[in-house]
Formats: sequence, structure tokens, C-alpha cells
Amino acid sequence: MLVEMGKQARKAARILGRTETARKNAVLISLADAILAQSDQILAANAQDIADGEHAGLTPALIDRLTLNPDRLDGIANELRNTALLPDPVGETFEETHMPNGLQVSKQRVPLGVLGVIYESRPNVTVDVSGLALKSGNAAILRGGSETLRSNQALVAVIRDVLGRHNLPQDAIQFIADPDRARVMELLQLYEYVDILIPRGGPQLHQFCRENSRIPVITGGIGICHLYVDESANLEAALSVVHNAKTQRPSVCNALDTLLVHQNVAADFLPRLVAFLGLDGVTFRADQSALTAWTDDDQPSSVAAAGPDDFDTEWLSLVLGLKVVSGLDEAIAHIEEHSTAHSDGILTQNEAHARRFVAEVDSAAVYVNASTRFTDGSQLGLGAEVAISTQRLHARGPMALRELTTYKWVIIGQNHVRP
Amino acid sequence: MLVEMGKQARKAARILGRTETARKNAVLISLADAILAQSDQILAANAQDIADGEHAGLTPALIDRLTLNPDRLDGIANELRNTALLPDPVGETFEETHMPNGLQVSKQRVPLGVLGVIYESRPNVTVDVSGLALKSGNAAILRGGSETLRSNQALVAVIRDVLGRHNLPQDAIQFIADPDRARVMELLQLYEYVDILIPRGGPQLHQFCRENSRIPVITGGIGICHLYVDESANLEAALSVVHNAKTQRPSVCNALDTLLVHQNVAADFLPRLVAFLGLDGVTFRADQSALTAWTDDDQPSSVAAAGPDDFDTEWLSLVLGLKVVSGLDEAIAHIEEHSTAHSDGILTQNEAHARRFVAEVDSAAVYVNASTRFTDGSQLGLGAEVAISTQRLHARGPMALRELTTYKWVIIGQNHVRP
Repeated sequence: MLVEMGKQARKAARILGRTETARKNAVLISLADAILAQSDQILAANAQDIADGEHAGLTPALIDRLTLNPDRLDGIANELRNTALLPDPVGETFEETHMPNGLQVSKQRVPLGVLGVIYESRPNVTVDVSGLALKSGNAAILRGGSETLRSNQALVAVIRDVLGRHNLPQDAIQFIADPDRARVMELLQLYEYVDILIPRGGPQLHQFCRENSRIPVITGGIGICHLYVDESANLEAALSVVHNAKTQRPSVCNALDTLLVHQNVAADFLPRLVAFLGLDGVTFRADQSALTAWTDDDQPSSVAAAGPDDFDTEWLSLVLGLKVVSGLDEAIAHIEEHSTAHSDGILTQNEAHARRFVAEVDSAAVYVNASTRFTDGSQLGLGAEVAISTQRLHARGPMALRELTTYKWVIIGQNHVRP
Repeated sequence: MLVEMGKQARKAARILGRTETARKNAVLISLADAILAQSDQILAANAQDIADGEHAGLTPALIDRLTLNPDRLDGIANELRNTALLPDPVGETFEETHMPNGLQVSKQRVPLGVLGVIYESRPNVTVDVSGLALKSGNAAILRGGSETLRSNQALVAVIRDVLGRHNLPQDAIQFIADPDRARVMELLQLYEYVDILIPRGGPQLHQFCRENSRIPVITGGIGICHLYVDESANLEAALSVVHNAKTQRPSVCNALDTLLVHQNVAADFLPRLVAFLGLDGVTFRADQSALTAWTDDDQPSSVAAAGPDDFDTEWLSLVLGLKVVSGLDEAIAHIEEHSTAHSDGILTQNEAHARRFVAEVDSAAVYVNASTRFTDGSQLGLGAEVAISTQRLHARGPMALRELTTYKWVIIGQNHVRP
């Protein structure tokens, strides 16, 4: 059954790949309209998912993740309209050269082909990914979580209906509704029909895909993120940057996990930080080096001694690791050992230190004097994202339209032969 | 044992990644000198491999592939000197933008890290790949074929010696000498230490890697290549382009496998072509549509009826498939069905046909009026290549220095926080 899906996706991708920009944009606009027009059916399907989830005892946080409402549907529709405004990467010609023998050589961007996307919970992913796939001329086979099955099916029905109305193949977007985990395994073997696999979920899903996929996998979305407060940092500003990185949305991958502080400012900075972030309910796991910022008597109850795995934990919640370091070298060494190479930054007024940090920390996103929360397609000018890659091949960091393309070499001669 | 290699490679890669261009170039020049200075030892090791190979009954073609001689060592040394002259991709900054909020965003090229390369026969690969890896700031773990074990070990000894003399980590280039196939399986699991796996060999090796690797794999190097002679082609020129594509080096992946000819020129062109290429010993597998170019009486003995798999065969020898098509549509459809998406071209004087062919044929290299033999790093201005990718992720077609890098996002703020 999945092979049949694969074949249909391949066929649809060929047509999508040759579809003009204006027509693809028209589909996105129609889709935005249709989602709002059919919001009653979508919200009814979502209400069933919510009821089932509550019955199954999902946590309020999980229920919130899978909940749709008129506001969130507005957001989804706006996202589609924004994607329609972005430049179409397909057909872009680059690296044009004339070889000394007269051959004209260039590269031309083409869609990747068929995307396989495995994701959990949030039903907006269904629409976001479909919008980016269609705009970049790709087909997609989607596998959402069972806890949002009805919402996803309702959204996919709207997408396929809009495709049909624009005389484009409905199978450009297909959804695996069978909740059997065997279907995921089957998807991972479809290398003839699927060009890239994007798992969006926890470490187990990524590991499962890495171990079992015969399709190239983009892993990412897991961030143990660091900020290092250098001796020369503007401490007042550092308070607000750290506060933002930790608390603005603690459940996501670019939120701060570990704060490293230079030993010469730790005694001043750490108590202020703990007091300030404590107002938002942040609790702390402090290395021995950081505990020395307090006496036994004045150590706040929000500060606990860090356990052995705490600096290798992505908190995804209002917990922050604290460590005092002797300087830039130790900060870089700690990041090298514990970072997942997602987003790491330095707060400093020392330009040489900023330069060294940028040169030596090899993460997908390296920051100077900014919150790690900016590692995000829309924040970095891509308009949206299908994933945040922490692997090194193909694309690193936020992936959007251009990252869903590859290129072909176009070589024009006058009956050239190789000597 | 391989885990230890991986750890050492990772350490070495960190140092290589920060090594200045001039120093990396000096290593390549020293290495070119050292290979010539130590040619006696290298050729002695190679002579043992040759003797063993002859004893084991390897074909003359295979013996030729693994043979080194002073000329070939000269070639290897020159390749290194050329690589030294190429621009260093590491550190290149691109896609610089200022976001409306004042964030400075750019991308900076960094090495991939550690390359795993599995290859067969030709010992020059050991040096070519090492040179490209070092120049692009990467470490490499190499696994050559058992039939060239001694030659490879001699070459790797020279490389490591040169690295040591330049105070760079010798473990930047490591070689798996144990011929046990279990070591390959072990290498494929080292995802913590190896960032990209490049198999260079036949379809079985590629399939084995795709099925078993937990490291991202670049597959490629397998080309069922097509040329289509359009009705408007300059037939005189077409003879020489087809001749070049088929005979200039028939054993390689960019050599021509199937010729498609427009029905209106087939009766004229096919007999001339068969006569002309026959002078070089080419034999033909003709589809029924092409056999009609001859009567039963005048069909040359070099032309046989094509079998059912002949249009899905990479010949790697002086055999050429022939098929007559009704026009551009059928040519594109045949290529879509049978091509491995390596190198495919059209010979035509009709610009609209050339444009459609380029737009609709989605191969790594698409040609207009040129031989497919140009799909090659040095022919396309990359100086050299580690592989010719036919997969869609990361890089397509010839891969050289830039394709051995990835990038990091560098984001500079003035204590920016996300609203």
C-alpha cells in the first residue's frame, strides 16, 4: 500500500516540479481561504481528538499542543499567505561559468522530489509542511501522530480538495492514516519513491529513523543550548537575554538549557539572575562551581546541586543548568562536550572573544549577544521552516523552501567532445 | 578499535578545521614531493599487490586498475599540486543579511568533519581523497580494497609522515587495514564520529551502505547515460559526440550507454554511426525500432537485438544500446524510466527542444550538444572530485572541496531578545 502511495507521490512530484510559481501561489492562497471557510469541520474533528486525548489521560501540555481554535487556524492561514509571498527557489540559476573550452556550465535549482515527514502532536505541522512542500515543487507523504489523527485527516482533506480544484494532482499530499507502527518502518524503506525523510519528534524517533531508514534522513530539532556570559558582558543586558532564551517559550528546541558564567562575574551575576528568573518560576541545577555564589545560608530554594546527567539534558521546561568557568577556553570546551550543536552563544563586549567563539564553536547557529530563540525559519528570514537540522549534510539550522531543493548541472556545448 | 579511530579522527578534524589555508597547501605540496621521493617503496609495495593479484587470477583490466608506475605517481603528485592551487572553501561567508530588527545574519562554511570513504582497486583514490579532505579541513577514515592493501598502506604511511612533519595530527588520515568485512559494518555504525560516508564502487556496495549505514551516505558513480539525437541535430557533429561519449573511456560512469535517435533521421544516421563506432570495436544492442534501419541482409554483425534488461544496464564497456523514438516526448519518457539520473543529453539545433529537454530531464548533469564525458570534477572546474553523486541530498554530480563543507549560521546582535 505504501509503495502505491510512493508511486503516486513520484508522479505528482513530476507535475508539481514543473508547475509555474503563480499557480503554486494561487494554491496556497486558496488553501488559506479554504481552511478558514471549513473551520467548523476542522474544529469538530479536533474536538474529537481532544476528547479522546483527555480520555486517554494526556497531560494538559500535550492537550494544548494538539488543540486547534479559530486563532490558531488564523495563524495557519497567515503562514500559508506568507509562504505564497516568498520567492520560488525552483528554476533559480546559479554558479554560471564559461569553461575555457567554451562549455557553458551552470546549476539550476530543482525540487528534491518527494518528502517523507513523520511528526507528532501539533496539527499545524500538516499544513505548514504541505505549504512549503507545494511551494518548492515537492510532493509529500505525511505521517502524523495518532493523537491528532482526525484533525490531520480533516486538514489533509481540505488540502487535497484545493489541489483538485486547481487541477493539480491530489496525491501531491498524502497522509498515512493507519496508526500501525509497521507503516513507519515501511515508509523508511521506500527509497525509490521518497527522497528525504524528515522526522520531527524526540530523540527516540530520530534514532529509530537513523537506524532503519534507507532514505536520507534529516535529524535535528534537539537542542541542548548554551549561553556563555563572558567577563566583559553587559550584565544588565545579559539578564534580559538569558531571561528571554530561557522563559520566552521553554518547551522548544532553541530554548536555553545551560548557562556558563565567567568566574570573575559569577558572584555578582548569578544571585541577580536566580532572583530575576525565579520570578517566572525558573529553577536551577548548579554545578559545584556555581554553588559557591551563595553561602549555605543564603542559597535560594530554587537552586539545587546538578546531577551527573543534568548538563546533557534538554530541559524543554523552566529548568536551567548553571556552571562557572574560568574563561573562554573552558566555556568552549564545555560546549564542545555537551552541546547538540543546535544553538550556542556568547554574551561579551570583547570583540576578540566574540571572534574566537564564532570560529571555534561549531553549532548550527552561533550567537554573539543575542538570545538563542532566534534559531527559527521566520526569525532568520526564511518565512517558515520544515525542520531545524542539527546534522551536517545538506542543510544546517532552519530548513525552508531553498533547503527543499537540490540542483542539476546544466552543460551547454557546441558539440563538445572530451579530449 | 574503530571507535578509537573515530575518536582520534574527531580530534584531528577539530585541529584541521582551524588550520590556515597556507599550511594546508604546504602539506599538499610536501605530500606531492614525498610521493615522488619515496616512489621506490610505493612501487615495491604495489608490485607485491600486482603479484598477488595475478596469482589470484585477477583480470588484466583489474590488474591495470591497481597498477602504479612512475607516470601514474607523477599524475597523483600533480593532482595534489592542483588541489593546493584551488580556493579554500573553509571560512567563506555567504548570504549575509541584516534583519529588520538589526540582527546581522550570515552563513560561514565549515568542514563536514570526518569522512568515511570505502573504495576499491585504484590506489590513487587514497591520495586524491586525502588531498581533498585535508584541503577542506576534514579528517578521513579510509577503507580500500584488499587487492591494493600494500599499496594503500605505503601511500598512507607517506601521508601520515608528512602530516607529522607539519605538526598536524597524523590521525587526520587513518586507514582500516583489517580486510575483515565486519570492519565495514562497524564503520557504518560510527555516526558519532563519522559525518558522511562515501562508498565508491558497484551497486552492491551502495546498496549495502544504504541498508546498513547509520551515517548519511552519498551514493553515486553509477550512470546509465543517454544521448538523444533530435531530428534537427547536426548529424556529422553527432557522430563525433556519440563516438566520444561511448569510446573515449568506456569503463567509467559518465560513458554513454543508450543512444536514442529521432525516427526521421534514424535510417540515415544509424548505419553511419554503427560503421563509424564499429571501427573502435563497439557492438550494439538495438531495440526493434532501431533494427528497422537495416534490412535482414545488410544488418551488420555488430548489431544484435536488445534483451529485456539491456536498457537498464550500465555497460562500462564498448557496448551501446540503440532505440528509435518518435520525438522529444518519447526520448524524455525513456530517459525518465531508464536513467540513473547521472548524465543525459540532447543533440539538437532546435532551441525550444533544448530548453524543454533541460527543463524536463532531471539528472545530475543535463547536456545540450556535448559529450556526457564532461561530468567530472576537473572538467567542470572543481579541480578534482571525491565522488559523483546521483542522490539528491547535499550535493549532486561531481563533489569536491566545497561539497566537503557545510555551514554554520552566525548571528550577531546587540543583546537582542525575541519578542
